[in-house]
Amino acid sequence: MYSFLKYPGEHIDDLLCKGLKIIQHQNSYRFAIDAVLLANFVKAGRQDKIMDLGTGSGVIAILLSAKTDAKEIVGIEISQEAFDRAVRSVKMNKLQERIKIVHGDLKESANIYGRQSFSVVVTNPPYMTLNEGKISPNPDLAIARHEVATSLQDVVKAAWELLTFGGRLYMVYRTVRLADAIYEMKAQDLEPKILRFIHPKAGNRPNLFLAMAQKGAGPGVKILPPLVVYNNDGNYTDEIKEIYFGKQPEDKND
Amino acid sequence: MYSFLKYPGEHIDDLLCKGLKIIQHQNSYRFAIDAVLLANFVKAGRQDKIMDLGTGSGVIAILLSAKTDAKEIVGIEISQEAFDRAVRSVKMNKLQERIKIVHGDLKESANIYGRQSFSVVVTNPPYMTLNEGKISPNPDLAIARHEVATSLQDVVKAAWELLTFGGRLYMVYRTVRLADAIYEMKAQDLEPKILRFIHPKAGNRPNLFLAMAQKGAGPGVKILPPLVVYNNDGNYTDEIKEIYFGKQPEDKND
Repeated sequence: MYSFLKYPGEHIDDLLCKGLKIIQHQNSYRFAIDAVLLANFVKAGRQDKIMDLGTGSGVIAILLSAKTDAKEIVGIEISQEAFDRAVRSVKMNKLQERIKIVHGDLKESANIYGRQSFSVVVTNPPYMTLNEGKISPNPDLAIARHEVATSLQDVVKAAWELLTFGGRLYMVYRTVRLADAIYEMKAQDLEPKILRFIHPKAGNRPNLFLAMAQKGAGPGVKILPPLVVYNNDGNYTDEIKEIYFGKQPEDKND
Repeated sequence: MYSFLKYPGEHIDDLLCKGLKIIQHQNSYRFAIDAVLLANFVKAGRQDKIMDLGTGSGVIAILLSAKTDAKEIVGIEISQEAFDRAVRSVKMNKLQERIKIVHGDLKESANIYGRQSFSVVVTNPPYMTLNEGKISPNPDLAIARHEVATSLQDVVKAAWELLTFGGRLYMVYRTVRLADAIYEMKAQDLEPKILRFIHPKAGNRPNLFLAMAQKGAGPGVKILPPLVVYNNDGNYTDEIKEIYFGKQPEDKND
């Protein structure tokens, strides 16, 4: 397995999901709970073709291979280093038949794959505008965190181009940009249909949200109950444990 | 006090706030918790002039006279019957110096008062589109509940016309229309800055939300902790009790 490592600073992490693993670099973007929650939020069946816009290390694409029955999953990534790691992670997990990783600009994805070529698009876009926080000198990390290579508007536009009529965009994003995300979606005829806010603790402010928007759908959004990450004792809530580790019968013996 | 009643079916209700009372009609719209939560959500000081778009019975305008120091509060209402009751409720509470009730179409409010003539606009717009539910044969009730006389877009546009630069729109609305509300606000350069979701019970889906949008503000919205109405035992939460009844030292003797 370690033969898949290629550069100093790379290591293999367990995705805690059906034995899946991922190559990450110690100085680059490493997946966090948002990626796992997004993968878990996506509903896709056998007939679905999924595009992961800005796939980075490929974590969401790889998780979706286990969490859904989608026949084909494509991830597009502009960073050469992240792309290269994602390709190796897919091979390492022997998922080459279901997951294709493409090196390219997501803004060009409809030119590569054709318009209306996917029934599902997922994305965990960069959270920070160029006016927020310090942009990393590491280009790989800068691209993942800041809107250096792509903006929210670019991502939503690419999703609209790629999606079939009735197709679904799934996104995880920061709550501070909720209004921007909803506006961009509606401006692109991607109607927000489901929202779920992610709260670090119950009764606190949410910091992230999950959204599903559907191309060409009528108005009306359903807001799900809060998704709470930690109990007051600092441990994961039962819902998060189930997302990370699945239903575990031995929990009953705790 | 009963001399303020004029038509059969009218009665006087207590607003549970500094002795304020309101005239309501048994067959018409009667205020509910959403109006109280909206009035409590509004922040306004001595220099503020507040417009309540679609004031109905005047409940929000009357509550704001107690909850804020705003020097002037205007309520505009298109329904002749509701307007007439609101005028009498203001007189009954001896608030004629601070609250003016106007009979008219909120879409015309900027023509009546001038553009940029208010620093704060509040509104509890009709919740139902014309495609939802049964429209009441009672015109007064139909106007309050359904978008018969005014749409969400009309309300947001009127707010934009009335507000000074930096002025604030406060709204309570149904969560199912969150995306529509955010879209209309942003489309009118009213930037959503604060959102708070109202949950009947903790851990459940929210059914209403409070929003504050600011004219000409930059992007970025703050989502407050959930506002929970009922405890699991079916009683009001402490926060709701405080909103309704204020901080009551005798609670400690319960």
